[in-house]
Amino acid sequence: MVLNSKKGLYLRYKLTLEYDGTPFVGWQVQNNGVSVQQVLEKALLTCTKEQTLVYGTGRTDAGVHALDYVAHFDLKEECDSYKLCASLNALVRPYPIAIKKVERVSDDFHARFSARQRSYIYKIQNTRWPAVLNMNRVWQYSLPLNVDKMNEAASLLLGKHDFSTFRDSQCQAKSPVKTLDEIRLWREEDIIYMRVAARSFLHHQVRNIIGTLTLVGKGKWTRDDFRQALEACDRTKGGPTAPAMGLYFEKVMY
Amino acid sequence: MVLNSKKGLYLRYKLTLEYDGTPFVGWQVQNNGVSVQQVLEKALLTCTKEQTLVYGTGRTDAGVHALDYVAHFDLKEECDSYKLCASLNALVRPYPIAIKKVERVSDDFHARFSARQRSYIYKIQNTRWPAVLNMNRVWQYSLPLNVDKMNEAASLLLGKHDFSTFRDSQCQAKSPVKTLDEIRLWREEDIIYMRVAARSFLHHQVRNIIGTLTLVGKGKWTRDDFRQALEACDRTKGGPTAPAMGLYFEKVMY
Repeated sequence: MVLNSKKGLYLRYKLTLEYDGTPFVGWQVQNNGVSVQQVLEKALLTCTKEQTLVYGTGRTDAGVHALDYVAHFDLKEECDSYKLCASLNALVRPYPIAIKKVERVSDDFHARFSARQRSYIYKIQNTRWPAVLNMNRVWQYSLPLNVDKMNEAASLLLGKHDFSTFRDSQCQAKSPVKTLDEIRLWREEDIIYMRVAARSFLHHQVRNIIGTLTLVGKGKWTRDDFRQALEACDRTKGGPTAPAMGLYFEKVMY
Repeated sequence: MVLNSKKGLYLRYKLTLEYDGTPFVGWQVQNNGVSVQQVLEKALLTCTKEQTLVYGTGRTDAGVHALDYVAHFDLKEECDSYKLCASLNALVRPYPIAIKKVERVSDDFHARFSARQRSYIYKIQNTRWPAVLNMNRVWQYSLPLNVDKMNEAASLLLGKHDFSTFRDSQCQAKSPVKTLDEIRLWREEDIIYMRVAARSFLHHQVRNIIGTLTLVGKGKWTRDDFRQALEACDRTKGGPTAPAMGLYFEKVMY
């Protein structure tokens, strides 16, 4: 039970979600469009008659997808998790959000602050032809990319670094220093995948990393050029920001 | 060179295509909506100034997708295949068709009649929650399916059989007898895949097979029930027709 001084005792619930980021301004409520958070809060109000805030594990940009995103909220009344899940799936329609699981969790669980590690997947469709069945699901990139070279350069980012080169100018984090636990690229037929994992990320960090790695993949940069860019700690020395549509929030570990 | 008595000599081209079947009435030109064939013929007319027929390797139903569909057409003037491919990709927009390859082929190549084997993939998303990132790309099926049991039943279909139980009443084939070279199901996380290969298929054959296999997968039918349905050679003894959106024309062998 969570004690809320204004309203009394609350029960905490954890949500696991998949969403297609295409129609959203991102996870977080904003005044310029529909957010995933807002759709969920509205569905919860309809279904439970309680006005509750939904806390996400972190922001995602407009157009970024999620496979196993986690959020939490508190309710005054106890709800059957299975029924709540089914009701929410019906109520969020036609927005492309799937509620995969609703679970009762202990009071000290916090979707954002309890997180130990988050991971993202980035998908590049490396073909001359446009993405059709994968439209809005990948970054279609026409020039041939050498995944082995991208992987060799990417390994320089493992561990603790000042990631200023890959940090958006709008980033609100106090420090540009982050620790990357994993970064790995592989190809499956026409698709190149990148998986990255860290406790937390800077704004646009993943999209700036993969955008810069394409310079290595197409042979414009060597691994050493990539190292120099990292060491410059300067966004203007990095490569382009890859489009949001190729990025997936994968999962979060608690 | 192909000799056409009305118009003279022609050069034959082979197309390899991917398409999202969602907005189409199917491959073939029909008077109740837009077909893939029609979009391609219009694009070819714009780009080559020649009115040409595009011959597909076979019909696909409304909503059915294609990964490596093959078609051919004839042109009077020689075209650079690479440029033609790029032009067609630009001209078919905004329809979700990707021209993966254009190739000059010999006169005796025929997309339909030269085919030795065609294959299809069917995708079931076996989850309680709706398909979101896979919307219109899978059949979302809520009840748990036992893939091993589906595979055991499916193996009864291998080889030459009278497939009347899995044949649509509108099917125009002369005989219900077909030879299935491959049928195989497997699961990758939430998705169940079925791959089937044969020289040719009856109308709705793949969708009726997978629809009937779900009866086995959910435990309503045994392998023996499935065998009896096959042996009845009667569509009314088969299971439901699975939705088009889970079906992909995979490829064709020549």
